[in-house]
Amino acid sequence: MWWYWKGTQPDKDVVNFVEKNYKPGTTYADFAKDFTAEYFDPNAFVQAVQSSGARYFVFTSKHHEGFTMWPSKTSWNWNSVDIGPKRDIVGELRNAFKQTKIHFGLYFSQFEWFNPLFLDDGKFNTTLYPEQVSYPQMIEIVTKYRPDVVWSDGEWDKSDDYWRAKDFLAWLYNSSPVKDDVVVNDRWGAGTMGKHGGFMTYSDHYDPGTLLARKWENCMTLDKHSWGNRRNMRASEVYTAYEIIEQIARTVACNGNLLLNIGPDMHGRIPPIFEDRLAEIGRFIDVHSEALFGTKPWIFQNDTNAPNVWYTSRYRPGSSNRVQKYREAEVFNRQVEKETTVYAWILSTSAEKFELKSVKTTERNSLTQSLATTALTAGIPSLVDRHFTGSDDPYVLHGNEAGRSVVTPVFRGFFKVKSAT
Amino acid sequence: MWWYWKGTQPDKDVVNFVEKNYKPGTTYADFAKDFTAEYFDPNAFVQAVQSSGARYFVFTSKHHEGFTMWPSKTSWNWNSVDIGPKRDIVGELRNAFKQTKIHFGLYFSQFEWFNPLFLDDGKFNTTLYPEQVSYPQMIEIVTKYRPDVVWSDGEWDKSDDYWRAKDFLAWLYNSSPVKDDVVVNDRWGAGTMGKHGGFMTYSDHYDPGTLLARKWENCMTLDKHSWGNRRNMRASEVYTAYEIIEQIARTVACNGNLLLNIGPDMHGRIPPIFEDRLAEIGRFIDVHSEALFGTKPWIFQNDTNAPNVWYTSRYRPGSSNRVQKYREAEVFNRQVEKETTVYAWILSTSAEKFELKSVKTTERNSLTQSLATTALTAGIPSLVDRHFTGSDDPYVLHGNEAGRSVVTPVFRGFFKVKSAT
Amino acid sequence: MWWYWKGTQPDKDVVNFVEKNYKPGTTYADFAKDFTAEYFDPNAFVQAVQSSGARYFVFTSKHHEGFTMWPSKTSWNWNSVDIGPKRDIVGELRNAFKQTKIHFGLYFSQFEWFNPLFLDDGKFNTTLYPEQVSYPQMIEIVTKYRPDVVWSDGEWDKSDDYWRAKDFLAWLYNSSPVKDDVVVNDRWGAGTMGKHGGFMTYSDHYDPGTLLARKWENCMTLDKHSWGNRRNMRASEVYTAYEIIEQIARTVACNGNLLLNIGPDMHGRIPPIFEDRLAEIGRFIDVHSEALFGTKPWIFQNDTNAPNVWYTSRYRPGSSNRVQKYREAEVFNRQVEKETTVYAWILSTSAEKFELKSVKTTERNSLTQSLATTALTAGIPSLVDRHFTGSDDPYVLHGNEAGRSVVTPVFRGFFKVKSAT
Amino acid sequence: MWWYWKGTQPDKDVVNFVEKNYKPGTTYADFAKDFTAEYFDPNAFVQAVQSSGARYFVFTSKHHEGFTMWPSKTSWNWNSVDIGPKRDIVGELRNAFKQTKIHFGLYFSQFEWFNPLFLDDGKFNTTLYPEQVSYPQMIEIVTKYRPDVVWSDGEWDKSDDYWRAKDFLAWLYNSSPVKDDVVVNDRWGAGTMGKHGGFMTYSDHYDPGTLLARKWENCMTLDKHSWGNRRNMRASEVYTAYEIIEQIARTVACNGNLLLNIGPDMHGRIPPIFEDRLAEIGRFIDVHSEALFGTKPWIFQNDTNAPNVWYTSRYRPGSSNRVQKYREAEVFNRQVEKETTVYAWILSTSAEKFELKSVKTTERNSLTQSLATTALTAGIPSLVDRHFTGSDDPYVLHGNEAGRSVVTPVFRGFFKVKSAT
Repeated sequence: MWWYWKGTQPDKDVVNFVEKNYKPGTTYADFAKDFTAEYFDPNAFVQAVQSSGARYFVFTSKHHEGFTMWPSKTSWNWNSVDIGPKRDIVGELRNAFKQTKIHFGLYFSQFEWFNPLFLDDGKFNTTLYPEQVSYPQMIEIVTKYRPDVVWSDGEWDKSDDYWRAKDFLAWLYNSSPVKDDVVVNDRWGAGTMGKHGGFMTYSDHYDPGTLLARKWENCMTLDKHSWGNRRNMRASEVYTAYEIIEQIARTVACNGNLLLNIGPDMHGRIPPIFEDRLAEIGRFIDVHSEALFGTKPWIFQNDTNAPNVWYTSRYRPGSSNRVQKYREAEVFNRQVEKETTVYAWILSTSAEKFELKSVKTTERNSLTQSLATTALTAGIPSLVDRHFTGSDDPYVLHGNEAGRSVVTPVFRGFFKVKSAT
Repeated sequence: MWWYWKGTQPDKDVVNFVEKNYKPGTTYADFAKDFTAEYFDPNAFVQAVQSSGARYFVFTSKHHEGFTMWPSKTSWNWNSVDIGPKRDIVGELRNAFKQTKIHFGLYFSQFEWFNPLFLDDGKFNTTLYPEQVSYPQMIEIVTKYRPDVVWSDGEWDKSDDYWRAKDFLAWLYNSSPVKDDVVVNDRWGAGTMGKHGGFMTYSDHYDPGTLLARKWENCMTLDKHSWGNRRNMRASEVYTAYEIIEQIARTVACNGNLLLNIGPDMHGRIPPIFEDRLAEIGRFIDVHSEALFGTKPWIFQNDTNAPNVWYTSRYRPGSSNRVQKYREAEVFNRQVEKETTVYAWILSTSAEKFELKSVKTTERNSLTQSLATTALTAGIPSLVDRHFTGSDDPYVLHGNEAGRSVVTPVFRGFFKVKSAT
Repeated sequence: MWWYWKGTQPDKDVVNFVEKNYKPGTTYADFAKDFTAEYFDPNAFVQAVQSSGARYFVFTSKHHEGFTMWPSKTSWNWNSVDIGPKRDIVGELRNAFKQTKIHFGLYFSQFEWFNPLFLDDGKFNTTLYPEQVSYPQMIEIVTKYRPDVVWSDGEWDKSDDYWRAKDFLAWLYNSSPVKDDVVVNDRWGAGTMGKHGGFMTYSDHYDPGTLLARKWENCMTLDKHSWGNRRNMRASEVYTAYEIIEQIARTVACNGNLLLNIGPDMHGRIPPIFEDRLAEIGRFIDVHSEALFGTKPWIFQNDTNAPNVWYTSRYRPGSSNRVQKYREAEVFNRQVEKETTVYAWILSTSAEKFELKSVKTTERNSLTQSLATTALTAGIPSLVDRHFTGSDDPYVLHGNEAGRSVVTPVFRGFFKVKSAT
Repeated sequence: MWWYWKGTQPDKDVVNFVEKNYKPGTTYADFAKDFTAEYFDPNAFVQAVQSSGARYFVFTSKHHEGFTMWPSKTSWNWNSVDIGPKRDIVGELRNAFKQTKIHFGLYFSQFEWFNPLFLDDGKFNTTLYPEQVSYPQMIEIVTKYRPDVVWSDGEWDKSDDYWRAKDFLAWLYNSSPVKDDVVVNDRWGAGTMGKHGGFMTYSDHYDPGTLLARKWENCMTLDKHSWGNRRNMRASEVYTAYEIIEQIARTVACNGNLLLNIGPDMHGRIPPIFEDRLAEIGRFIDVHSEALFGTKPWIFQNDTNAPNVWYTSRYRPGSSNRVQKYREAEVFNRQVEKETTVYAWILSTSAEKFELKSVKTTERNSLTQSLATTALTAGIPSLVDRHFTGSDDPYVLHGNEAGRSVVTPVFRGFFKVKSAT
């Protein structure tokens, strides 16, 4: 799971707001001075990410407006050292995260909305912008900050040739200082998204609901309406921890990772409600990490009769190397092994009874309820009545109070199963 | 329960911060221009307060720095209309809250830290400051905004004579436009706190733990460290909803009200984490309002054998007018009536068994568990095993999972009781 | 001659300018922060005034907008110490000028355009504003800074009773620390201007052109269009040194003094073009001080046949005390003495020949041409041909080059005269 | 004569000032927001230059800090359209000057003090900066604004190869839209100054005092201490009009042109004292243009016996084309023609008698005194006594008042002369 941070970003709806609150003629460049980041503390980012249980952190080194969060040589006076914070934000974060086990990645926007060189390339069919700006910048951030992930974006208007993507990737994997470990996404030129690259991102907020053969990523935002910080964001516009966990379940069950965006404010601070949410999610993950990290999609991703139930699975340890290699190459767990653990993520539902039809029991089955111990199980009565027949019947779980909405995150079953198919 | 808002307030620890982030010689007055309040929306305050279940809202019309949130005639160019927001914050809030059932009150600081007239009065034993500033301002806010509560503060250095408190209160109760309904606190001059006035506030964050004869108020902050907004506040520095509910239980059981402070930011916005907390508290109150609003303290406030259990009580309806009058005059419910409802607020504990020794049962007792349905009951197993003997034995409640911390907000018992005394 | 300085003052024509260059809703109070005065140096003021030859300096301690240039106790947070410069401008100037022979005076505006107390007094027929603001401020500046001149203004809307002018003047002349030396003007309440007080100011830019019985003052500006600093002032909008000298001649000849205003800028700096003009005027005065300081008006102020010629006069020294006292009481020099010096200020004219008809010569007359040596005589040919008949004929002076404009400042004649009357 | 304008430029001595008046960590880029130029009016520049009598105007399109006064494609967000004024300063000035007869030129700094590309080129022996920044910018300003003069600067650290100077000049003279008319200076790479190019500039403030064979330029400032605007400039730090005229005389007599710099302020306004000086110089030039424009250096530049006297000369009209061509190619006027006009610029001196030894008279000589009519001749008595012998004796001029300093700008003599050699 990765996170990334967006610097100041103009909301398109704020035209009226700007007209009312700023002097006439105010430009985007004028706002840089307000991005003071006087409270920016890389450790606050580390703590927030750690508290969330995330394994990856992806920081927006440059977004579409072209402002670089490091002192780029090709973005003079339009970066975080020359104006605004007067600090190498990328560098400070990189150093802080390198003290941890969390992987450090960098988001990078290929194009820049208003860069005159880019706009001219469009008019005159030239390549000045990638030659003088974007390509050197990519080399710069990899060489200087050695990210574990390079998360390219803003590529869609131009071909990968224009962006010199093949040159870059060849250098990245063959010569760069991170050649052995780096991971990339799939946004390297018009038409590459969902096709070429490392993991697939498809569109933002991608949520297919079905198993995908290639590893993919659901990149979404904690603020329902914006990738950037909104000073006027209301609490009701922030996803609840439960909603995010639901996304995690849907995503992991279908072979994806979740990348969750938060936008720090002009003071360089993570809004406390984001810290709060991340910690709440982290408390859940801390208890249920077994059902999440290192799991494989199962034969079934969800269950026909029990809406909002999602499955992940895990191979039992102790197999031979040959078998393990084989497993790694598999898209999903085919359950050819004798023992497999299947995790059922039972999400909020008003149903009184869950029939997990996909799960067939055998005599050797056992099922353990993992009661939630965090706020995420808010308002959930325990599942007091359990009818586990030990036969070929499906598992049936009854909520103990009719009419109540029932949310319990994870059931853990160890069984040899016969799937419904 | 009342709420109030604090405008910009300087944190004493920020000296180094100011030196680092502002030009040398910056004064407090310089910050007024940064208090832009461009996102100030009185309806956002109404919504936040309504979502919390609060019945009163107390707004800081002026704090110790003297900046008035209305266009005071005696604070020219140092108020929210002449500089900063350019809006009558008090007036807009008053109009918005008058559309609701929530009472609207005004906090008012008698002294002003740095006002030269006040400082001179101290040196020369004069009374220029109250005559020219504070007394006219109090008349002004009552006449102009008709508050239901006048919450005086900053009185401690001077006598009530200096502040002309008796003149003001005489006017307030005899001639002012709110003479029939207004409520005041107890901060009207050195030595009056806890003695004279309407409800007693004693010190800030007052939490006696024992029954007080006079109605009192626990005024505290949602931010653990500040009454004012802190741009660098972390989520971990905000009280959890559970901690606030615990304060509500402790306070109401002992004859108090809770006034919870939140500090909006320089943009005029309530930090989303505060909105979030208020809504979470409100969801709890919504379910348990019966144990809270209109209750009386009981004979016992808490229980010796069950730490962190607090009691409130309610008379059964249908009594004669004479009896009701008598009850109103009582400090606590003496249980002379045949039927009284007692509410046990069972707060977080690691104890496996609760012995409510204060509660003696009779044959006509009944006890109903009111299960929480909100996030506040996070991680609480239901109290599945109940042993109500119907005898003179105390009630004993068992948590159903040993070793787990147990939090359940409210038990509601209808009984005729014999108290332990 | 006195000078005074005006702080920031809004130009009424700048409405459009403000709308274009500032954020909407900008108030006058917002501008205080821009008045940084980072280059304010009281010695620069001393040097400028000294270079001009002026004997008095009158500083605007407060103008109609109410911003006090000293830390007034009744103008908290709306003065030069609390905001903007963070310096006691009045105090620093006072200390600097006290090191010199130049008298130090203070201009003070009675009313304040937008002060709500003043506006309310107008509505409700009360006297809160003078009691709480203006009267205490006058006592404050006299007590604290001991000015040699108190130059009152902004009095016209209200009676001298309202302003408590008689109280103030009684205190000023009987009890104040400057009671023996202070001088005041005539603006102490509606109807007092030109009637009561010390010297008469009448309207601004007053220039009667005829002898007035009471000592008066022509207060005018070096910037043709404004008393305050204008960032957009052009060189062509600044009076030339010649034009100011012409005003000096017209004024002194008619029993007046000149008070010349300059407006420093937001940086606390005197615009260099003002320094330049003052120095240029000073070089003229340095040479011609004999015709200026300590002179008396003469029988004639100007001459019918020689337009733009003005006269001053001086008694010869050595008379008895009785005679000197008599002279001091006289409005103009009646020339009863045997020997009087008359100075003819011959200003720019295109006339080729000057007939000074007012000046009758006798056998004992002599006339000395005082050639200018400064830039003020720029381009002036000397008056090479002089026809002094020594008879009763008037003096006739011929310019030596026909068609040229002739400007020569001062002719000095020692004579016993018979005036034309 | 050319003029140029400098945008905001940091004074090296202001470190302490910045520390005292700005927040810590302030960078040069931060100042851009203060360069608001809200009063910038290209017509004010036109009027100032016209009033001065100048024939050329050279504007600083970019100085060493790299901020471009036009919306350069290679200086995004660091130019006058993206930040600060939000206007194309170069374009507006160009359009305004094209309505006049004044030539419009552009100053351009090759290097940029702090541009990371330039600094890197120095470290790594690369040419990224000229390829991506300076060379494209030169093409851009010539193509877009068609200047009559390209005034290169900031070249000294690098070779002309590095700057691609030969490429640029070849393009400029062969293909550019100004190829037929453009003029350039001599700063095109280390070692070119004073050797190659159009006119020679040598160092700033160059004032050789002797005749130079190649046309050269004395580029100097009206502010004695700075090329940029100084908010704290005092009137005494501005050269007087006389001092500038002295420089004109010294320069033109030795085959040079004068380029006089003025620095507008952050409001986009020419300081009024500069307007004043320019107009004063212009009034002088207006009267004496015959001795200035279109003149040739004479055999002698100044005179041994009359210090501070400088000569210019003019051929009499009516000669054949062949002769005129010959004359144009000459560095100085050899006086082979029968009739030549020689102009003696007689500058300030305390000498009572001028012996113009270089000027030998013949019977056909005549000499006309051209009396100054402007303020520049301030305080100068006319030269009333003239002794022109008509013989071989040198001209001798007597001031008419012993001990006075004498300044008279120009004597015009028509003669056939024998020079002193």
